[in-house]
Amino acid sequence: MKPNILVIAGHDPSGGAGIHADIEAIRALGGFASTLITGLTVQNSQNVRGFQLTDIALLEQQADALLEDVDYQAVKIGMTGSVAIIEFIVRLLDRLPGVPVVLDPVLAAEAGGSLTSESLADIMLSQLAPRCEVMTPNLPEAQTLSGKTGVQDCGQALVTASGQAALITGTHDDTELVTNHLFTAAGEQTWQWERLPHSYHGSGCTLASSIACLRGHGESLPNAVADGQAHVDHFLRNAFRPGNGQHVPDRR
Amino acid sequence: MKPNILVIAGHDPSGGAGIHADIEAIRALGGFASTLITGLTVQNSQNVRGFQLTDIALLEQQADALLEDVDYQAVKIGMTGSVAIIEFIVRLLDRLPGVPVVLDPVLAAEAGGSLTSESLADIMLSQLAPRCEVMTPNLPEAQTLSGKTGVQDCGQALVTASGQAALITGTHDDTELVTNHLFTAAGEQTWQWERLPHSYHGSGCTLASSIACLRGHGESLPNAVADGQAHVDHFLRNAFRPGNGQHVPDRR
Repeated sequence: MKPNILVIAGHDPSGGAGIHADIEAIRALGGFASTLITGLTVQNSQNVRGFQLTDIALLEQQADALLEDVDYQAVKIGMTGSVAIIEFIVRLLDRLPGVPVVLDPVLAAEAGGSLTSESLADIMLSQLAPRCEVMTPNLPEAQTLSGKTGVQDCGQALVTASGQAALITGTHDDTELVTNHLFTAAGEQTWQWERLPHSYHGSGCTLASSIACLRGHGESLPNAVADGQAHVDHFLRNAFRPGNGQHVPDRR
Repeated sequence: MKPNILVIAGHDPSGGAGIHADIEAIRALGGFASTLITGLTVQNSQNVRGFQLTDIALLEQQADALLEDVDYQAVKIGMTGSVAIIEFIVRLLDRLPGVPVVLDPVLAAEAGGSLTSESLADIMLSQLAPRCEVMTPNLPEAQTLSGKTGVQDCGQALVTASGQAALITGTHDDTELVTNHLFTAAGEQTWQWERLPHSYHGSGCTLASSIACLRGHGESLPNAVADGQAHVDHFLRNAFRPGNGQHVPDRR
């Protein structure tokens, strides 16, 4: 059984992040991705230069065509890009009751350049996050979303605001180990991973899609969060460098 | 060494065809895909309902970002969608001298619905095909492009018009075996494959991307054409059915 995973995210032509990352990670973990592209970006492995968001009317037609045809076992949300797109996603999730949703709250692209305005953070937290069983911000994103600074304060604020779980990743720190923290209403769980030597393009997309795919296979949320991190660690250890910038996780 | 393959093609949200097929096939064969999306389509595994082409200015910016950063070992072209996009692609290929290019001359989507006007066939054959070392039409596409009917007449006309090779596939026939014909200036070579029981979404995209990736690995054109067909036969034998319509090749 190959779970169908609905991905709602941006497109990165260089193939490191966005739907390339999602498609590859989901296939590597035995699922199959449908994708609704929220926006086309201009970027390579070195920087992000711009983006053009997709018309809501087209997204609505695409969503109708998919939902008529396919049953989804999980949803992954990446770059949203506008309030209107967040509202479209909320309407779409209303049509998928009971389907687990993983939210990667993309607020800036990893290689620099702002992909979405910080003003989106409020509506993302108040409207979208309550529909998603877990969000997967890195610490800077968690700080922007929650208005707090320390990881525990951020995590508790995100759980309180959303009523859902939050996995805050430590990849953007410079400590010897990467510590990831899962906050739920029941408390906190942490994992530590070796910090690998390079800078990686699309690691956040890869993690969120891996967790979504494992949820689609029927793993519990804590197990999917744990196993998803292990898969990403494996992809990162095999990373390669297609251009002159960041490395790309080898999602196979 | 993981060859970088530049894909210029449409996006199919259902994941069967378009850049999903390209990304998956290229990863399965050990390459890595960059993608320029010529248009966003509305479709599922049952039919194609519409599409919206990408702005040329955005495609130009994306192409600039990619070519500054990455060296490409091969190019695959799928849905073009407009004369302006074909002209953009011809300009782009001028910046990639010596890089092998595989053209899948998409004129209609496999599940029905016209993705491009037949008036594009003329400019595709006169402007684009001469820059591509092989085109991979099915017989109906070869007939539209060449204005001929029989496979030999079509193949010879396409070789004469383009000065390049043409692989005409027999998948859209109803014979017991699928016969594919490679026409070059030197003559004709054929392969026969068992006709599999289902209708498949994205098999043409998968074949062209497989050939491009094998060329990117350094295989000769005849070897890449032969091995590409064998890989696609394998993907088709493992095909699955994500929705209620066509099967999808399992590109792993």
